[in-house]
Amino acid sequence: MERSPLITLLTDFGAGSGYPAQMKAVILAASPQARIVDVSHEIPQFDVLAGALLLDACVRWFPAEAIHVGVVDPGVGTSRRAICVVDRAGRRFVGPDNGLFTAFFDGARVFDLVNPERVPRPASATFHGRDVFAPVAAWIGEGGAVEELGPEIEDPVRLPWPAAERDGKTLHGEVVAADTFGNLVTSIRAEDLGGAAPSVEVAGHQARFVRTYGDGNPGELLALVGSGGRLEIALREGSAARMIGTGVAVKAILP
Amino acid sequence: MERSPLITLLTDFGAGSGYPAQMKAVILAASPQARIVDVSHEIPQFDVLAGALLLDACVRWFPAEAIHVGVVDPGVGTSRRAICVVDRAGRRFVGPDNGLFTAFFDGARVFDLVNPERVPRPASATFHGRDVFAPVAAWIGEGGAVEELGPEIEDPVRLPWPAAERDGKTLHGEVVAADTFGNLVTSIRAEDLGGAAPSVEVAGHQARFVRTYGDGNPGELLALVGSGGRLEIALREGSAARMIGTGVAVKAILP
Amino acid sequence: MERSPLITLLTDFGAGSGYPAQMKAVILAASPQARIVDVSHEIPQFDVLAGALLLDACVRWFPAEAIHVGVVDPGVGTSRRAICVVDRAGRRFVGPDNGLFTAFFDGARVFDLVNPERVPRPASATFHGRDVFAPVAAWIGEGGAVEELGPEIEDPVRLPWPAAERDGKTLHGEVVAADTFGNLVTSIRAEDLGGAAPSVEVAGHQARFVRTYGDGNPGELLALVGSGGRLEIALREGSAARMIGTGVAVKAILP
Repeated sequence: MERSPLITLLTDFGAGSGYPAQMKAVILAASPQARIVDVSHEIPQFDVLAGALLLDACVRWFPAEAIHVGVVDPGVGTSRRAICVVDRAGRRFVGPDNGLFTAFFDGARVFDLVNPERVPRPASATFHGRDVFAPVAAWIGEGGAVEELGPEIEDPVRLPWPAAERDGKTLHGEVVAADTFGNLVTSIRAEDLGGAAPSVEVAGHQARFVRTYGDGNPGELLALVGSGGRLEIALREGSAARMIGTGVAVKAILP
Repeated sequence: MERSPLITLLTDFGAGSGYPAQMKAVILAASPQARIVDVSHEIPQFDVLAGALLLDACVRWFPAEAIHVGVVDPGVGTSRRAICVVDRAGRRFVGPDNGLFTAFFDGARVFDLVNPERVPRPASATFHGRDVFAPVAAWIGEGGAVEELGPEIEDPVRLPWPAAERDGKTLHGEVVAADTFGNLVTSIRAEDLGGAAPSVEVAGHQARFVRTYGDGNPGELLALVGSGGRLEIALREGSAARMIGTGVAVKAILP
Repeated sequence: MERSPLITLLTDFGAGSGYPAQMKAVILAASPQARIVDVSHEIPQFDVLAGALLLDACVRWFPAEAIHVGVVDPGVGTSRRAICVVDRAGRRFVGPDNGLFTAFFDGARVFDLVNPERVPRPASATFHGRDVFAPVAAWIGEGGAVEELGPEIEDPVRLPWPAAERDGKTLHGEVVAADTFGNLVTSIRAEDLGGAAPSVEVAGHQARFVRTYGDGNPGELLALVGSGGRLEIALREGSAARMIGTGVAVKAILP
């Protein structure tokens, strides 16, 4: 049977920049029947945490066989390592060792991409997405064994992961990202709420807790469990991001 | 023979938001060889009519076997119905019952997606594109019978459809959309003109009727039959959208 | 064996405009198993040189079998010719005869798309990407012989190609493009530098020559050989494009 590996791409390159196309070209040259899916090429430039959070939101929906290439890589060409991660569910990730895959490290094996027989010598010092990560992903997709890429390491770079802090009935979190609708994603997870309807405060504003956007009134600030399993802040028919912004504190008081 | 269904996506999510990627993940999990084509993820947010018009312009070019998923869905999670449309040509559409598929209703059958054995219970209240429409489209693509999705309904939500009104030799229409070049698309269709070269007026400006953009002079306001089969207003080497905007009246006087 | 041709698209349409989707629809109708890759749909409108430079940067990474459709076409519907180029490496290109494929002309054969039995009569005067170039590319991908498309021509339109001029140890070039990171791409090629580390001046600013972005200090103006094999100007953690812009002169003095 012909292989048809599934490879996803997440970068901060911009979809129209030509850089994602060069990665796809390299993948298809090595793995002609690869199915390639763009997760996003619009990660804010050099914002490794934003990329890590979007991977966390998206990867779970793909079949476990998928190979995820992530390139938000301000340290490209320096001494930062390149890694392949195999997480607990058997999902594979290829990219820089800068914390981009932090969400998947628990119980994972991480390999340092140093075997010169398996890892291509990059043609450029500035585009390892094309020169290293894409060909390694294609090679894995064609059946290559991750163990051959290099030795296992125990100390991949981890990002501090945004989480809620509980103080009695109060959950303290923060706004960690904004989506394209201007909805604010917070560090408070659905499981932190335990199914309860909290009283939510963000940057001095009260947000009414609802089930879905349509439950709000025009111009009303809402709080709800978003599709990524996190508490979100939304402005009905408006942009909470423009009104409030990211990086601010969020407080959810359980009943 | 392995199935390779063709599924298209039109949303207002933004291509880089991660939401289209989650829909593709769900489709590929259920239908590994599906061919997925992005029609657009840049519909203005919540602008159901803009999405409906773009579907009208694009769908006719796809093979009839294609399944079109449309998600411009301000009422997600509320009591608005979810539907599958099978139009006269046998083309299938999956999405919210809010008029997004109005262009395809003549002679169509419309099914209410309520059969709990065929329609997944959504994991979220805010992202039925991923939780309902994508899996239903994948299921149809793998050979599922639309009749099993739920009962046929006779009253899907229809949008008022922009059309020209004729008054003697004068056609009254309006600007209904602007494309990425700043060309203005109107509600006057090529067949309304009957092959004649009209005298065109838009928001008080005279526009010279030509065959193609290159027939105009730099800075000249032009009217022509666009590639979508509608009268368009264009500013040669400029943006008619910036000069004039949408929503305004257009008048075409036949010779 | 079923064919699975590889077809790439480069346009100035905007990815979300619906126009690339219409091209894909036409390709898939004629060539159901075609693999379609977007090179870019974000070329600045009507900027044929920008499209030509991006093709030059991207095409080399694709397998030689790929068919490249390019549509930056201000003269659509006028008397400008439509062409198919077969370059020295056997790569095929389809698009307008306006210089978009200038980078590939050396040793190439160029065919004028005029055979009415092989080249579709366009349904519109304004969208030959959908009506002519996409179906021709699909037909070639399905095994059609380029010689049947029309007669070979010797005088395709060529763009003046940006190149460095050498004056003793000084290379004079210009900034020809900016990428999505705000890095400036110049007309000075890596081979012009011959491996040496030049002293670089751009618009009155000194730029320190480094190997990769990470070698610079925050806010420092850098010069380096970019991933496209050209001298680039970068602002560490900033945008050189915003600071300096395109079209300006660059000087590299060899040691």
